[in-house]
Amino acid sequence: MTDLAARFRKLWDELAPVGRDERSGGYLRYALTEPELWLRNWFREQAEHRGMPVTGDGNGNLFAWWGDPQAGAAVLTGSHFDSVPHGGAYDGPLGIVSAFLAVDELRAAGVAPSRSVAVGAFVEEEGARFGVPCLGSRLLSGALSLERAAELRDADGVSFAEALGDRPTGADAGLLGRFAAFVELHVEQGRALVEQDAPVAVASAIWPHGRWRFDFHGEGNHAGTTRMADRRDPMLTYAFTVLAANKEARLRGAHATVGRVRVEPNATNAIPSRVTGWLDARAAEPETLHGLVDAVHVKAAERAKRDGTELTLTEESATPLVAFDGGLADRLARLLDAPVLPTGAGHDAGVLAAHLPTAMLFVRNPTGVSHSPAESATDADCAAGVTALARVLEELACR
Amino acid sequence: MTDLAARFRKLWDELAPVGRDERSGGYLRYALTEPELWLRNWFREQAEHRGMPVTGDGNGNLFAWWGDPQAGAAVLTGSHFDSVPHGGAYDGPLGIVSAFLAVDELRAAGVAPSRSVAVGAFVEEEGARFGVPCLGSRLLSGALSLERAAELRDADGVSFAEALGDRPTGADAGLLGRFAAFVELHVEQGRALVEQDAPVAVASAIWPHGRWRFDFHGEGNHAGTTRMADRRDPMLTYAFTVLAANKEARLRGAHATVGRVRVEPNATNAIPSRVTGWLDARAAEPETLHGLVDAVHVKAAERAKRDGTELTLTEESATPLVAFDGGLADRLARLLDAPVLPTGAGHDAGVLAAHLPTAMLFVRNPTGVSHSPAESATDADCAAGVTALARVLEELACR
Repeated sequence: MTDLAARFRKLWDELAPVGRDERSGGYLRYALTEPELWLRNWFREQAEHRGMPVTGDGNGNLFAWWGDPQAGAAVLTGSHFDSVPHGGAYDGPLGIVSAFLAVDELRAAGVAPSRSVAVGAFVEEEGARFGVPCLGSRLLSGALSLERAAELRDADGVSFAEALGDRPTGADAGLLGRFAAFVELHVEQGRALVEQDAPVAVASAIWPHGRWRFDFHGEGNHAGTTRMADRRDPMLTYAFTVLAANKEARLRGAHATVGRVRVEPNATNAIPSRVTGWLDARAAEPETLHGLVDAVHVKAAERAKRDGTELTLTEESATPLVAFDGGLADRLARLLDAPVLPTGAGHDAGVLAAHLPTAMLFVRNPTGVSHSPAESATDADCAAGVTALARVLEELACR
Repeated sequence: MTDLAARFRKLWDELAPVGRDERSGGYLRYALTEPELWLRNWFREQAEHRGMPVTGDGNGNLFAWWGDPQAGAAVLTGSHFDSVPHGGAYDGPLGIVSAFLAVDELRAAGVAPSRSVAVGAFVEEEGARFGVPCLGSRLLSGALSLERAAELRDADGVSFAEALGDRPTGADAGLLGRFAAFVELHVEQGRALVEQDAPVAVASAIWPHGRWRFDFHGEGNHAGTTRMADRRDPMLTYAFTVLAANKEARLRGAHATVGRVRVEPNATNAIPSRVTGWLDARAAEPETLHGLVDAVHVKAAERAKRDGTELTLTEESATPLVAFDGGLADRLARLLDAPVLPTGAGHDAGVLAAHLPTAMLFVRNPTGVSHSPAESATDADCAAGVTALARVLEELACR
């Protein structure tokens, strides 16, 4: 093991037990709950240990500064600590740990930054607690209004402001204006780097994507005594829609997933009165995405007529195509001799790309699995990621 | 409104708010939780008010006695207080309220019983809290062992013994031997009485029925980045199985319902690692029921191969055909000039029918809907039910 890989492993092991579910082996690191608060505290300690002052933006996002926070033209890197339910260890934290180690690498090499470098930890990137992904970066950039944020509640009815301990302060153009670029390092969530036999890639774009809620209303009734012909069973319409979404996505080369469902009353011996399914859909082009969602909607509505159920479709979020700064991506790809890849996953970098030159680095994931305990990356590839990020920070902040 | 319908309404209104969910209008009267404990206390007060001593059987079942509890050859009537999640008001409580009112009717008419009459309230009939329907009558009759009962836990991990305040005492042949017959009055859970234009029916049989748990195991992964071809998505196998169960049941004139599902991790942006669905299946003949479950299993297993998922099938409960005492049913049908109907629903009467002559009376349900807030019965039909039950008790206990 190289020294850098060993230094990575040492830091990584500090985080390994935090928020880990023993049964699944996955992480329950929901934003501003105990495990994530522990990680935020760890972030402050790591910054202090490196003499990097920490500032907040009033929205729950944290920044640790190497250099003057007020100087402007700073280079931002970092990612997030929060996880999906039973998520993997790497999605998020890898970008923060790699950022601190990249600062260490530059300092050890005696490289002095000509611009400030900030390591960021964004809050609620997954949307697993309050339902809106990239909540922190959306608030900071103004992509989500304070009115809308005030309505957000977690499953226990706790508001985002209550979890944060104060009302979020929303858009801060002054702070954003002091960043010249943002580079987010992230574990790859697919197998493209395995197939291309490379440890690190540069991102080209994020597919347009969104979440659509399908509410199927039927008639609750007794499972044992209600004749099949008399039923208005919304579970049937739901099941048909799940299969239709899969088929339509395959036909279009798009991605469609129904990974979340809620059933009322969810009892073995009762025909449900209501079934709600969430469709996550993504495609390379917006037309493909909207064609997909429209086709699923039409098929679901047709089936609802046959089942005697009613369908309400609600677009809960929709994120347009994000093309990362092409010049910056090309420059980093040449610098690192790395492939350039699109991705289907949303990130804080996708939100901030509308406001400043933004790039992403991906680190190889042997199985391609993410949002799952099986997510992984080798220590050697993580070290390669740190080296690549250090070279990027040197290129952008130290010349 | 007749006097009897008014008396019914007055008593019924006392129960109406207990455990009612304001949002759904349905009831959350889980066994041995606060609303059901309130109803059990109400039972004791009603009994005391009528000078009927109350005894327990050590399993959570209560009996209020008109006459000597030890005399033997007693006639048992009654039902249960507990509900399914967001269930209706009538399923269960109607049989207990009607029993007290039938005793009042007989007393008001000056009819003296030659045998003791007991009004029973059975515990956990729906199985909504501990997962085993008819838990109280199964324990009393020995159909469920104390070992198996000791393993039962509710969703919060509370054992049945903890909820009861003591270990259940199990089978009591002595107590059962003191009953000469059991007659359970229940709201109809279908529309046969609407179609036959009659307020009350006598039951002929309970269809064989059971609960089968389908566990579909796949690979949790990122919904945005995982190519459709690389997925092992158990939600697809689940959805296919739901539709297959519906189709196979219709082909056979049987009933199949998947009303309950559990998804891990149940996140919008994650392909599930595991989906569990519960199949409730019922049919007039055992061969039809087992043919149905086998056909669904075969189709689900085939689809699992296509989806790259794995299926485990577990029979959680199976109840054979219950033919109620034919002589007793005919006698009561003649007495009441009432139609005779089979039902797809399980009841405590179905469990006790293996041990003593047992009959059921059904009261008309205008919509046929049950296990839902929409379940209903008119006060006039409920009064007709009380009158019928009083005549049955007179026939069985007062001659």
